[in-house]
Parts: sequence; structure tokens; C-alpha cells
Amino acid sequence: MDRELAEATSAIADVIDRALEGYLPAAPEVPDRLAEAVSYSIFAGGKRIRPVLAVMISDALEGRRENVIPGACALEMVHTYSLIHDDLPAMDDDDMRRGKPSSHKVFGEAMAILAGDALLTLAFEVAASSPPEARPARICAEIAGGAGPAGMVGGQAADIAADGAGGGLEDVRYIHSRKTAALIRASVRVGAIAAGASEETIALVGDFGEKLGLLFQATDDILDETAETARLGKTAGKDAASGKLTLPAAVTLEGARREARRLAGEALGALEALEEVPVANTMLPRLVDYVLNRSF
Amino acid sequence: MDRELAEATSAIADVIDRALEGYLPAAPEVPDRLAEAVSYSIFAGGKRIRPVLAVMISDALEGRRENVIPGACALEMVHTYSLIHDDLPAMDDDDMRRGKPSSHKVFGEAMAILAGDALLTLAFEVAASSPPEARPARICAEIAGGAGPAGMVGGQAADIAADGAGGGLEDVRYIHSRKTAALIRASVRVGAIAAGASEETIALVGDFGEKLGLLFQATDDILDETAETARLGKTAGKDAASGKLTLPAAVTLEGARREARRLAGEALGALEALEEVPVANTMLPRLVDYVLNRSF
Repeated sequence: MDRELAEATSAIADVIDRALEGYLPAAPEVPDRLAEAVSYSIFAGGKRIRPVLAVMISDALEGRRENVIPGACALEMVHTYSLIHDDLPAMDDDDMRRGKPSSHKVFGEAMAILAGDALLTLAFEVAASSPPEARPARICAEIAGGAGPAGMVGGQAADIAADGAGGGLEDVRYIHSRKTAALIRASVRVGAIAAGASEETIALVGDFGEKLGLLFQATDDILDETAETARLGKTAGKDAASGKLTLPAAVTLEGARREARRLAGEALGALEALEEVPVANTMLPRLVDYVLNRSF
Repeated sequence: MDRELAEATSAIADVIDRALEGYLPAAPEVPDRLAEAVSYSIFAGGKRIRPVLAVMISDALEGRRENVIPGACALEMVHTYSLIHDDLPAMDDDDMRRGKPSSHKVFGEAMAILAGDALLTLAFEVAASSPPEARPARICAEIAGGAGPAGMVGGQAADIAADGAGGGLEDVRYIHSRKTAALIRASVRVGAIAAGASEETIALVGDFGEKLGLLFQATDDILDETAETARLGKTAGKDAASGKLTLPAAVTLEGARREARRLAGEALGALEALEEVPVANTMLPRLVDYVLNRSF
């Protein structure tokens, strides 16, 4: 990541972190151990990509920060819940996440399930608390649509169903568009909704988010094959070992790299379609390059 | 349940069932197996108590049915997700629910976790789709508050933490007010919010819901000790066997029955406080009697 982009994202991530601290539940209203488990995963070193995207889009559309922060924090809570549940023994059975032990390794399976449930539920309480002019019900619906059975949860279900069953590029796209792209698409749309953007702008922003999300999962699949565990912060090579249907599994590693470059081009094209609003004049093109070339 | 009350609740439950059918996800947008798992649990013979309460309160306050139905369906989805996750091996490890095999026995643990996640997420998409005059963001916040870390999820976490550790009446109340009463309180409040009730009425209705919810869990604990598995539709005697902190465990079975009668009196008292609105002139007092005297 170039220095200017790194500084811009890190400044937004700091704002998100402070807001998240204020939203997290605490004892005695909430049992100690549950509050600890929620906090452990929320502050486990996530890159805050979804809230950063929401805020960047809102900033580009000249939205007010206080209108987008609740929805942005909700997106990070939803993302974090999904990681906790994905790591469970019955799911991907991963002992490491972001270089630290997974929630269930620290708190046990029952508490990990509940910590995920708590974050998913809290997300909607926080999103619903957005100021009226940010259109809070619409933000709730957007996040739920991206995270729900036709979105992220559906993608995870399809991913599990495909384990060991093989499949082609179309199957990979079905999974990736739901598992990853749906929530990233929702993230940028939340930024546009909170900023009071028109339906046309919301739709164009969503197209960009979809492509960026597909790119993100493509490079994730590639990194699982090529990166080292220490750098990745989670177990590398796990997808291939467990017979997961990944992009490299469907089209070879070279084909996956080609597909990633194609998706990056489409994401940049989607940004150009937004030229009437100032979205293209931001760090977003550089963020696309970063996602294409990232090494962890 | 007397016949008139049974007919009134069953008529509302039918309306809810039809609305739920329309809200449930379907292939190909959603993977087959996930759609099946979601449908299996939603239509497993639930009594629809939470949506029935929301609709009864809304009716009593002369709210429009179309304003309360989305929130009422969302409450049933949240309740159903909680049962799926509670039954998981890592949680209460229950193989039976409503006289049928639990979700994870039919679909496997991973799909059961995801079906619960899907229902919880979908609940907020549906609640957010309430008509504007029903105050959809407020309905989302209400349901999330009742279901989240300071509500139902917190109660379940406290329940698990208390397993085998014993405790007194205060500990039982901490668990019951969160595990069960929080969502029942939210249910009646959703009915009042959707009906456009004043803050004072929403608060009074909430007091009634809190007492009814505590009563409901008290009789649930009593039935676990006294009823037969076949009649209960889930494994009877399981709480005592697993060292759960229940009301009978804290204050003996006779003490629990006394507490249930006391809570029923408080619930009826809370209804009387609503005499300026026509809530008391409904089936709700009879519903309190039913919950006190129910045998399954």
C-alpha cells in the first residue's frame, strides 16, 4: 500500500476503532465473558476495509461523517461475526485468525457462537441508530441483504456444499459474489445511502463494490496458495488441503491471476462510470491496485 | 387454553405463517440446502407466541395489520434462530425440538449454524421493510436490543456460565430477564411502536412484556422438571440432569410455582396500568392465565 493511501485508510480506521469502543457492550448489563469475547475479536487487528470503504464513499459524496459512522461500524461487526463463525470446528475449523488464536480456541465453542450472534445483532442496533437523514432503515436493509441468505451466509453455505465436490468458474463466481462481494457491495452502498446519494449513484457505487469484492476474494484465494502462514495471519494452504473450491482450483493459479487482473480492470471501469460524482477523484483507484497486488 | 383464546391466537398465527412463507429465501438466489434448513425450522410447529403478542398489542392499540406484520415475522425469525443455535452440540446439545429432530441432526452442524445466522440476518431485512409509519428503524433497534448481548444472547451466555455453578434467585432473574423476557418485552413493544403508540404506552406495554416473559420462563423451568418428553416436544428433565441453574434449582419446585403465581399477578397488574388504552380489554389477561397454567 502506498504511503498516502495507508495514511488515509489508517486515519479512517482510527475513527472507526474509537466509535466501535463506544458501541461495545459491557458488564454488568452483559455477562463478563461475552463482553470479553466480543471485544477480543473486534480488536484483533482487522484492516477495517468495509468501514473504510463506506466512509471513503461517503466522503467522496460529501456526506457527513456522523451519518456514516454507525453503518460503517455495523459493517465491521457483521464482518467480525462472520470470521468467528467461519473459524468454528464445524465450519472451516481454523485455530488462527489475524495471527492470534481464534475465538473458540480462547473462549470455547459455545461462547464463540454467542459472541458471533451478539455482534451480528448489535450491528443492527448500531445501524438503526444512524441519524434519520442517513436513512437508518435503508442502511439496516442494505447490510442485512448483503450479509443474509442471498448474500454472505448463502455464499458460506455454497462454499461448504462445494467442499471436495469440485466445480468450474461459474460455481466459483456464485460463491465469491455471495461470500465476499455481497458485503463489500453493501459497504460502499451504505456510504452512498448515508450520504444521501441518488438511486443512480447508489447503483453505480454498488457495481464498483461488487467488482472490488470479487477481486478481493480472488486475491484471497491466490494468497492462500502462495503466501506464508506468518504473513497471512491465518493458516495458509488450507483451502487446497481441505478440497475447497477456490479460483486457482477451478482455473489454475495463472488463470486466477488473470481473472484478478480482469476484475481490477472492471472495478476501475466502474469507478470511471462515476465521473459525474467525484468518486473517481479519490484514493479508490489506488485501493483497487492495492487489493490486486496485496501480499497479505 | 380456552377455546376463544385458542381461536384468536390461531387466526393470528395463520396470518403470520402466510407472511413468513413470502419472506423465506429460495433457490437459486439461495443455496438449496440453506433454504431447506431455514424453512425446516421456521415451519417446525412453533406456537408463534412472539408475533401473536405483537399483533394483539397492535390490534388493541388500533394499529394497522400491515404495519406490524413485518416486525412480528422478524421476531419469530429471531426466536427460531435462537432455538437452532441453542440446540447445537456446543450449546445445550439437544437432539429434539418441537417433537422433531433438531436442525443440526438433520442438516449437520455447519448448516445449522448458517441457518441460524441466515434467520437472524433476514429478520432485520424484514423488520426494516416495515412501512415508514410503523417506524422501521425503531423496530429494528427494539428487536436488536431484545435479542442482543444485553438481551437474549447475554442471557444464554449467563445461562451457560452458570451451568453446574449453582446460584440463587437473583442469578436466575438475571438469566431469565435476558434469555426470555427481553425478546418477549421487545415483541409487545414492537406491536406498540408499529401502532404509533406514545412513549408512555410503549413503556407500559414493555413492563407487561417483561413480566409475561419472566412468567413464561418460570413455567418453562417448571415444565422441564414435571412434564413428559412426548408432551413437551423436547427432552424433559434435561435442565436438572445437566446442572442448569433453573428456578426450581434455586428455590425448589414449590418456590418456583409460587414465583410463577407472583409473576402472573404482576403481569395482570401491568395490564391494568394500561387501562387508559384498551389493552386490558383483550385476550391478554387470559393469555397470562394460560402461560401460568400451561402443561407444555
